[in-house]
Amino acid sequence: MEKSQRNIKLTIAYDGTNYHGFQRQTNAVTIQQILEEKLGKLFGHQIKVAGAGRTDAGVHAYGQVVNFYTTGSIPVEKIPLAARGIMPPDIVVLKAELAEPRFHARISAKGKTYIYRLYYDKLSNPFHRYYAWHVYHPIDVEAMHQAAQIVVGTHDFSAFRAAGGVAKNPVRTILEASCLSKNGIVEFSFTGTGFLYHMVRNLVGTLVNVGAGKICAQRFAEILASCDRHQAGATAPPQGLYLKDVYY
Amino acid sequence: MEKSQRNIKLTIAYDGTNYHGFQRQTNAVTIQQILEEKLGKLFGHQIKVAGAGRTDAGVHAYGQVVNFYTTGSIPVEKIPLAARGIMPPDIVVLKAELAEPRFHARISAKGKTYIYRLYYDKLSNPFHRYYAWHVYHPIDVEAMHQAAQIVVGTHDFSAFRAAGGVAKNPVRTILEASCLSKNGIVEFSFTGTGFLYHMVRNLVGTLVNVGAGKICAQRFAEILASCDRHQAGATAPPQGLYLKDVYY
Repeated sequence: MEKSQRNIKLTIAYDGTNYHGFQRQTNAVTIQQILEEKLGKLFGHQIKVAGAGRTDAGVHAYGQVVNFYTTGSIPVEKIPLAARGIMPPDIVVLKAELAEPRFHARISAKGKTYIYRLYYDKLSNPFHRYYAWHVYHPIDVEAMHQAAQIVVGTHDFSAFRAAGGVAKNPVRTILEASCLSKNGIVEFSFTGTGFLYHMVRNLVGTLVNVGAGKICAQRFAEILASCDRHQAGATAPPQGLYLKDVYY
Repeated sequence: MEKSQRNIKLTIAYDGTNYHGFQRQTNAVTIQQILEEKLGKLFGHQIKVAGAGRTDAGVHAYGQVVNFYTTGSIPVEKIPLAARGIMPPDIVVLKAELAEPRFHARISAKGKTYIYRLYYDKLSNPFHRYYAWHVYHPIDVEAMHQAAQIVVGTHDFSAFRAAGGVAKNPVRTILEASCLSKNGIVEFSFTGTGFLYHMVRNLVGTLVNVGAGKICAQRFAEILASCDRHQAGATAPPQGLYLKDVYY
């Protein structure tokens, strides 16, 4: 980094419906690509952004964090309004801050909160189709909340990691987990120091089996302890997942 | 109508984002067209549906009502689940009932409730872009609620009708009007025996001027009394409008 460069931290919200996830890909439009293109125009030079979390296709964010280096001169407090004019309506820059030169959105993160939304109904709700998982069987929210407490603490989460995950160490620490009903929507919240690939969606896919009475909380604890992905439930679909906050 | 035909009343919800309104058009996909195509496949003969309200492009419904005649044999209580398999995910048949032979979704309607959603923020919310109007200036919800009471009763609503409206009589009766704040969203509700074309959107576009302090409630009453469309505010955009209920 040159001395004249600033390291800018952005907090962004996006509706992930129309994107192939956060991370840049060949032949598919991603959040990272749009950010780099639009910020490049705004700052007048090529921009490379680093994101705190690599959300998948269809996954949303209320508080994704990215950072990038720029020699451009736009005052940091003017960036959100300047971005408003050039970003597509499904990506919004909520906040811009000047960060320490060594700040990195992913590496510096101390923790994250993800939420996952689902609803039970015999019929689907047309307004939720891109924003929550539709479950066709009744579910016991309190039973899911109780079972979710089992993941709080430091555990080997191999039973809930995707086959494609690249992390060497499957141990992660969950600080808080909850499941609450809000206006007809069931909302899981998981705060942890880190998450394996698909971990939240795999946890929710298995906790829903607890909520449906297919397995008990004791069995859920055994699945966690087994470290065996084959024992856990299906991966919950992407549209219910939101990266809510990143902590530094 | 032949004696063997049943008159079926459906209550449907839809996300109007991807449609050119309810009413059938040439060269544009509408809710009516999709309903007639899909119900035609389900019942095995050509279907013509009549809708209670002709929602515009981008306008949504929680409780649109339609009726149609059929010689098909599907039991009425099985229609919602049968429709689930063939309808696109943004149109949902919530309820099916056997109606009197002379029931007509529009002509038989005794009243309707429309709601209109908007939110104030300096920055836009990517999740609201198709579902609420984004207002950039702070608005006084209580002032809008008070001013909305002025429209309750029977009035000539010429000041709030669209130029293209075909109704001969501009007098309508509003039974209830409210404006409340719910989870960061401002929600107007209007229940009336009938509505002129664009009437709700024109009322909201003018009430927002009250909320912004640009005009007072007294001036809003004068605009209603003037019967002059040029004195009222702009037409609020379609994506905040929902046909909530139809009463018979």
